[in-house]
Amino acid sequence: HSTKAVAWEPNKPLVIEDVEVAPPQANEVRIKIVATGMCHTDLYILFESMKKESFPMILGHEAAGIIESVGPGVTEFQPGDKVIPLFISQCRECRFCKIHLFLFTCKGKKIEQFAGTSTFSQYTVVNQMAVAKIDPSAPLDKVCLIGCGICTGYGAAVNTAKVEPGSTCAVFGLGAVGLAAVMGCKAAGAKKIFAVDINPEKFEKAKVFGATDFVNPKDYDKPISQVLAEMTNGGVDYSLECVGNVEVMRSALESCVKGWGISVVVGWTELHDVATRPVQLIAGRTWKGSMFGGFKGKDGVPEMVKAYLGKKLLVDEFITHNMTLDQVNDAIELMKHGKCIRTVLNPFPQ
Amino acid sequence: HSTKAVAWEPNKPLVIEDVEVAPPQANEVRIKIVATGMCHTDLYILFESMKKESFPMILGHEAAGIIESVGPGVTEFQPGDKVIPLFISQCRECRFCKIHLFLFTCKGKKIEQFAGTSTFSQYTVVNQMAVAKIDPSAPLDKVCLIGCGICTGYGAAVNTAKVEPGSTCAVFGLGAVGLAAVMGCKAAGAKKIFAVDINPEKFEKAKVFGATDFVNPKDYDKPISQVLAEMTNGGVDYSLECVGNVEVMRSALESCVKGWGISVVVGWTELHDVATRPVQLIAGRTWKGSMFGGFKGKDGVPEMVKAYLGKKLLVDEFITHNMTLDQVNDAIELMKHGKCIRTVLNPFPQ
Repeated sequence: HSTKAVAWEPNKPLVIEDVEVAPPQANEVRIKIVATGMCHTDLYILFESMKKESFPMILGHEAAGIIESVGPGVTEFQPGDKVIPLFISQCRECRFCKIHLFLFTCKGKKIEQFAGTSTFSQYTVVNQMAVAKIDPSAPLDKVCLIGCGICTGYGAAVNTAKVEPGSTCAVFGLGAVGLAAVMGCKAAGAKKIFAVDINPEKFEKAKVFGATDFVNPKDYDKPISQVLAEMTNGGVDYSLECVGNVEVMRSALESCVKGWGISVVVGWTELHDVATRPVQLIAGRTWKGSMFGGFKGKDGVPEMVKAYLGKKLLVDEFITHNMTLDQVNDAIELMKHGKCIRTVLNPFPQ
Repeated sequence: HSTKAVAWEPNKPLVIEDVEVAPPQANEVRIKIVATGMCHTDLYILFESMKKESFPMILGHEAAGIIESVGPGVTEFQPGDKVIPLFISQCRECRFCKIHLFLFTCKGKKIEQFAGTSTFSQYTVVNQMAVAKIDPSAPLDKVCLIGCGICTGYGAAVNTAKVEPGSTCAVFGLGAVGLAAVMGCKAAGAKKIFAVDINPEKFEKAKVFGATDFVNPKDYDKPISQVLAEMTNGGVDYSLECVGNVEVMRSALESCVKGWGISVVVGWTELHDVATRPVQLIAGRTWKGSMFGGFKGKDGVPEMVKAYLGKKLLVDEFITHNMTLDQVNDAIELMKHGKCIRTVLNPFPQ
């Protein structure tokens, strides 16, 4: 049995329940969740996408834990291993895993199982394809954020946009994903990083991660793409949309310089089409997207944990609140009102 | 004075008129047009975009000719040089010309002057930035097509999509631009090239340029993206939209394989937004576009002419009709009804 925060239906508070957890079957592992972050995509599923047929559901997908037991056929893991569950698995066998490219999914886990790791719980069972083993010295209450937000934003800059040294970037939306994107742009050597948000309280934090300039679209009568074009002699080299709003996605694309500008869709939404005039692309802009920052989880996550341990990656700075799992609805309220960057939940309070 | 085909107003036949041509001013050259192709973009401007304020206008932008006279300050050209006018100029000085990348325009000529070469005429005057000198042995009544359609399609495959050897491609729309895209895919080493058109009469021609498979969306009840996904184990590696229709642009994007598929918008339209669900990009697809195939005209056009002379590029095969300039309205009718690939017009019939 395991305490879990159950989302019984859309748009309602989660309920802490005692749920039976099956022992791991063939190729599965059971993970004791030590820490789990609250990510905006959890809120998206609860309050925005509202797919009734998906409920009840255990949310949570940004976590770290310890292998508790393993099922038949599992050789890669043993009890006691520190791990991060992967909401995009890596089987290393299908055509998507084998190709020497970053990508977003493989046959093992479909995009529909986005929240399939279900980490708002004390124990969760997942296929071994969906688990990354990490350095035993890693503090789980910190590196849990590498399980989603940090990789998603950082990777979008370094893997997907492939930001180049000396370039000019703009990051739209300064939640954890956006801040991680700022950090990625800085790590890639960007000279100028515009942090764009309608909440100016986020700018101070963005500076910590490497932002050099701050733009609040509400301060201007003109479209933000025009404002940025005027500030940058024609537009930025790279833009990253970290909001999940199709109008912002369009603005981000159109903020790029013609000829070579690259815009990456990082924020998640399935509710609307994203659109632009064809000439925006014909003029030489590139529109891309990525999920989990284009990292392959089993390979990328342990490396990101190492980068953190080697002080090459900020993680602690994302955490604004620590709570216990039974405070999950407080964590949801904080995020709903933009009052946190990341809240880390502890399912086993002492 | 010069005979020109004047478009007095949108949606009306062109009228052959005797128009005064100014002598070339500083940095300008006057070109005797020897041959000019009819391109679908000429029809787009006449029948679709319908911007009244742009008329009267001399259409035509895909041509070859001979320098007749030069204005003060012109050192690159002299009378007698064989040239191709460029609807996208290359000044070699602005930031867009200097950067080591393919792009779509420079400060010298804005996109608004798309048809600014005005080649449906005996003589035209253009800035020297908008002229490419070509091999004196080139047959002008053939290589005129390198001035637009051939570079646009071929370059979209080799410069913009950067098609890789062994890959699977789909080209939507089998006009001259689409056929040139097929040729570009083949030159880049594509293994499979799907030619997609609702007019099956185009398939025979597509084979000449290298298409290996033929798909008529009208033969299926399912969306063409789904048809192609089933034929290719998940989607093509590269798709090129050569129609100028926003619904086809969407289909082309969604026909690409997730993870690494690249779709290029080649067809021209300014009338509607192009749209897709964000997840199509987030899944790892890339949406690009290019104008004039990403070639810089002064550099690219002479090389393409050389490739033709060296029998590495098909050109003659695009030409289905030859007419005189005063038959320009017949040429328009042929294209309107999909009855030609390219008609080449001669402004100086013997």
